[in-house]
Amino acid sequence: MGCLATTHTKAIQKVDVPTFDWPIAPFPKLRYPLEEFVRENAQEEARCLEEVEDLIVKWGKRGKPVAGIVIEPIQAEGGDNHASCDFYRKLREIARKHGCAFHVDEVQTGGGSTGKFWAHEHWGLDDPADIVSFSKKMLTGGYYHKADFSPDKPFRIFNTWLGDQTKNLFLTEVLKVIKTERLLEEVKRSGKVMLQGLYELQTRYPHLLNTARGIGTFCAINVKDEATRNNLILKARNKGVVLGGCGVTSIRFRPALVFKEHHAHLFLNIFNDALAELN
Amino acid sequence: MGCLATTHTKAIQKVDVPTFDWPIAPFPKLRYPLEEFVRENAQEEARCLEEVEDLIVKWGKRGKPVAGIVIEPIQAEGGDNHASCDFYRKLREIARKHGCAFHVDEVQTGGGSTGKFWAHEHWGLDDPADIVSFSKKMLTGGYYHKADFSPDKPFRIFNTWLGDQTKNLFLTEVLKVIKTERLLEEVKRSGKVMLQGLYELQTRYPHLLNTARGIGTFCAINVKDEATRNNLILKARNKGVVLGGCGVTSIRFRPALVFKEHHAHLFLNIFNDALAELN
Repeated sequence: MGCLATTHTKAIQKVDVPTFDWPIAPFPKLRYPLEEFVRENAQEEARCLEEVEDLIVKWGKRGKPVAGIVIEPIQAEGGDNHASCDFYRKLREIARKHGCAFHVDEVQTGGGSTGKFWAHEHWGLDDPADIVSFSKKMLTGGYYHKADFSPDKPFRIFNTWLGDQTKNLFLTEVLKVIKTERLLEEVKRSGKVMLQGLYELQTRYPHLLNTARGIGTFCAINVKDEATRNNLILKARNKGVVLGGCGVTSIRFRPALVFKEHHAHLFLNIFNDALAELN
Repeated sequence: MGCLATTHTKAIQKVDVPTFDWPIAPFPKLRYPLEEFVRENAQEEARCLEEVEDLIVKWGKRGKPVAGIVIEPIQAEGGDNHASCDFYRKLREIARKHGCAFHVDEVQTGGGSTGKFWAHEHWGLDDPADIVSFSKKMLTGGYYHKADFSPDKPFRIFNTWLGDQTKNLFLTEVLKVIKTERLLEEVKRSGKVMLQGLYELQTRYPHLLNTARGIGTFCAINVKDEATRNNLILKARNKGVVLGGCGVTSIRFRPALVFKEHHAHLFLNIFNDALAELN
């Protein structure tokens, strides 16, 4: 229920499920490429941070104090929305100031696809996240947290396998491969090719594509409307490339960590062919 | 939340978790050995079935129709409480009559420890359960259900790995071993030794033990009080045997499926030594 209450994923998954009464703060809607809209984006982020603090104060007065802030390093299901490192550092300060736990959801971003093992490493926090959750690239689901957040009673959180050793074996292997095959460096290299390629495609097809963005291979691009987006995904699939949508008109790219520069070139050619058919 | 609302496990796990408003019917409190108290037990079961039907009617009138009945073939966390096959068949009829789904929770009983693959196979139902959940012995958690209970929309139930193939690999292997090593037959043999041994021990230590009961190796025995029960578990542990409590004064036995007759003898000797120290 907690997951479904926070997610921005498909509405069908929330039907008939009760939800929690909690405040949702706006995530900054930035203009891309980020380096061209620094001043406008800083204003938008300041607006959102102010709203976060207002909500915390307002809910506190209503006798429903905000226990924690849940935030993604890139708002993924919501449409691959980015925010600056400065935004996240200030958000962390707001959490600390008001005694809210700071939970960084790295389910999609964690495990290396942004070129660092944790996407929030990009931020340069002076006080680490209180709780970090992860999954996807790490072939399991889990979380880690500061010692203060341990349950205060034995058996408070308990299940049959207490962590599932078999999943830990997988995780150990995943971590080993990431390290020995230097996959974070691969991600940086192939991510650069990807993003550069997406910039070129949106220049070539400005009436179809806009707002290319990304860190590492964690990239996305917007299509002019939802129907065209879905059609483009279909055309790519018929050429052997599986893409996923996010938000209303975005396509998100989530290649595996073993995705290399030549894969990026291969993909960009196929994507170009699919776009040419729509042209 | 649904799991925590239905379980009879440790109270600490429910603290601070919201719960659902739903009716809990009494589970029969039978006298053991079952074959000695047939008439009394049939009366107790009839009382409980009547209460189930009353609750369904009462909640229906209140505009909160009962969607389903959740039942274990042996009420496990509640203290290893048994009921007759006749009780379960009648309960299934009540569910059908009132349009309630009939969900058999085989998390603890499923996978072979009662000498049949599913404990509810002992009942001889003419209409199968609508939903069966399982875990434990099957090294994964899952459920199966009648086709009518499939979600009516795509993506209604969805997660990243859609069933987790790695768990299916484990499950395939578990099923293979159960079959090729004829583990259900082993369970019947070692379970007979276990239960016979527990009967003998409660005759030898009548002031400490009572109410030995079980099907296959899924056995339990009651200790005179909670403190003595916990002390007995500790003494057994110090002799190399890990036991678990259930209910307030019960000890439950949940050996692995590879538990053989000689393991049962080995255990009974150690358990006898632990009891002798308490004597």
